[in-house]
Amino acid sequence: MTTVAAYAVPAAKAPLERTTIERREVGEFDVLIDIKFAGICHSDIHQAREGWGEAIFPMVPGHEIAGIVSEVGAGVTRHQVGDRVGVGCLVDSCRECESCKAGEEQYCTGGNVGTYNSIGKDGEPTYGGYAEKVVVDENFVVRIPDALSLDVAAPLLCAGITTYSPLKHWNAGPGKKVAVLGMGGLGHMGVKIAHALGAEVTVLSQSLRKKDDGLKLGADHYYATSDEQTFKDLQGSFDLILSTVSAPLDFGAFLSLLKRDGALVNVGAPEEPIALNLFSVIAGRKTLAGSMIGGIAETQEMLDFCAEHGFGAEIEVISADQINEAYERVLSSDVRYRFVIDTETI
Amino acid sequence: MTTVAAYAVPAAKAPLERTTIERREVGEFDVLIDIKFAGICHSDIHQAREGWGEAIFPMVPGHEIAGIVSEVGAGVTRHQVGDRVGVGCLVDSCRECESCKAGEEQYCTGGNVGTYNSIGKDGEPTYGGYAEKVVVDENFVVRIPDALSLDVAAPLLCAGITTYSPLKHWNAGPGKKVAVLGMGGLGHMGVKIAHALGAEVTVLSQSLRKKDDGLKLGADHYYATSDEQTFKDLQGSFDLILSTVSAPLDFGAFLSLLKRDGALVNVGAPEEPIALNLFSVIAGRKTLAGSMIGGIAETQEMLDFCAEHGFGAEIEVISADQINEAYERVLSSDVRYRFVIDTETI
Repeated sequence: MTTVAAYAVPAAKAPLERTTIERREVGEFDVLIDIKFAGICHSDIHQAREGWGEAIFPMVPGHEIAGIVSEVGAGVTRHQVGDRVGVGCLVDSCRECESCKAGEEQYCTGGNVGTYNSIGKDGEPTYGGYAEKVVVDENFVVRIPDALSLDVAAPLLCAGITTYSPLKHWNAGPGKKVAVLGMGGLGHMGVKIAHALGAEVTVLSQSLRKKDDGLKLGADHYYATSDEQTFKDLQGSFDLILSTVSAPLDFGAFLSLLKRDGALVNVGAPEEPIALNLFSVIAGRKTLAGSMIGGIAETQEMLDFCAEHGFGAEIEVISADQINEAYERVLSSDVRYRFVIDTETI
Repeated sequence: MTTVAAYAVPAAKAPLERTTIERREVGEFDVLIDIKFAGICHSDIHQAREGWGEAIFPMVPGHEIAGIVSEVGAGVTRHQVGDRVGVGCLVDSCRECESCKAGEEQYCTGGNVGTYNSIGKDGEPTYGGYAEKVVVDENFVVRIPDALSLDVAAPLLCAGITTYSPLKHWNAGPGKKVAVLGMGGLGHMGVKIAHALGAEVTVLSQSLRKKDDGLKLGADHYYATSDEQTFKDLQGSFDLILSTVSAPLDFGAFLSLLKRDGALVNVGAPEEPIALNLFSVIAGRKTLAGSMIGGIAETQEMLDFCAEHGFGAEIEVISADQINEAYERVLSSDVRYRFVIDTETI
């Protein structure tokens, strides 16, 4: 066991505090990672405040982890000491179900293990990336290509893969019109990736406040959803809408912006049920779907794709003592576009 | 103009009465059809009672029409006098939009014309199949193969195509597990068609009351949705669930019965919005979708498919003076499985 410094939420809705946690011994197939940067994801806040149901406390959030391998177990073949690596939302899965066999560990039906707020196969709670170090099974550790700095790579481990996976799955690419709904941590990655995939990209944001940024990041068009005219102008326009917002929406209005056979895919998740008139999907044979992060192999593919296209996330690096303030700023959409904790400051 | 006898709803929610209506002259591209049989669709009742919004009265319902061509316009090439033909839910469309060009006239964005409760291109209300005759543009008239009697063919024009189209679109076939939700007019056709397409078919019905019928029509399994054990036994089982019910459902419970990447496709439409927790689609990358009837070419394909496989609908033929009683029986699910009006009795 190794004692490491970390920032933890001691109880639901409480502010984060500096503390220490124990990391397990490096097992045969484990990798010890010196964490360099950890992104702050909106879902860290959902979980720290029990917005998605009962959680495990104390909680060390953080599933956007970038660091350097400092020790490997005897059986490890995929990583070496000194490697630049990342860890995302998962640190284990059953490895036997149909989803695991298909490389879709995020949909594991045998029970996967979240990077934090989860119980590991050893029966102990898992603790995330707001910490100095972490021990992870080598199969759940990905390589960060040299072309990406660790700080801008960290948010790719959740925000990057969460948008890349559905964009690929629903065939965003040349000739396709894709709208990205929401221009936050997930949304700004959706814009970059959809653009790099070759799609014609439209941002649908509450206001035009971030329009310049959106266009710079690769959007071809930018509309405010607070303007009713937007919904008139864009009727039947899109093949795909990627919704990154976790606020409840007028889903009928957004579905009306799809072409026949179009899909509205949710990666943001409102805490409450939404209301939906089924005629919104029946007329035009439309799809309302969801997508959750991505598999490990696909996460590697996404990192390689981002490196090849020369981009990471747009970030604001903070020190650990700014986390609580950062949470408030995330909630008020006051971040462009991801806070990343410099873990040296923990 | 030709005066023909018909059964009409004089005003919203009023009972049907015998009356006469005018049919337009047979134009250059028109076909005059002596109607022999007209099916009673649940949506006739929705519209007659304004459950789907404001309607046009008097209303002659009926969009499951089977009959014999008795006159053709000078320009007609697709049909001849004496041909056995059918008309479904549409009698015209814009013919210019992307959907029309793709043979998906049901999703016409330029404005298609319903067989009744709609305004035709001549500015006059359209009247449906509860009548002696109808005049329809030849492009919206399909051939009924000799292997199908006209009475069992009539319901195929709506119930048949409404289930065939999504089953084909979502790839029901060998190796696929398909559930048909609801065992009524649409559902019983869904079972027959999914079975004929080679899928493994499960019926999910409120009770086991119609189990023997379901198995006879081609279902491999039959479960009652009123039994909680059903939802435990069938977790993660299906590639596709075709929902034919128009009552509001617990959509989360039904989505949990899908495999990863499975689709719940609605062809029934509750009048009220449904409540949906988006985690139901995010976990497992699932799809909630809808589908509306089918295109004209696909309707012909479906009729040929049914003829080849030797089945029409399961019907109960009634005389016109039984229509009002039949409506009540449809509402109480007391029909096995489609009422068909013998239009000689009008």
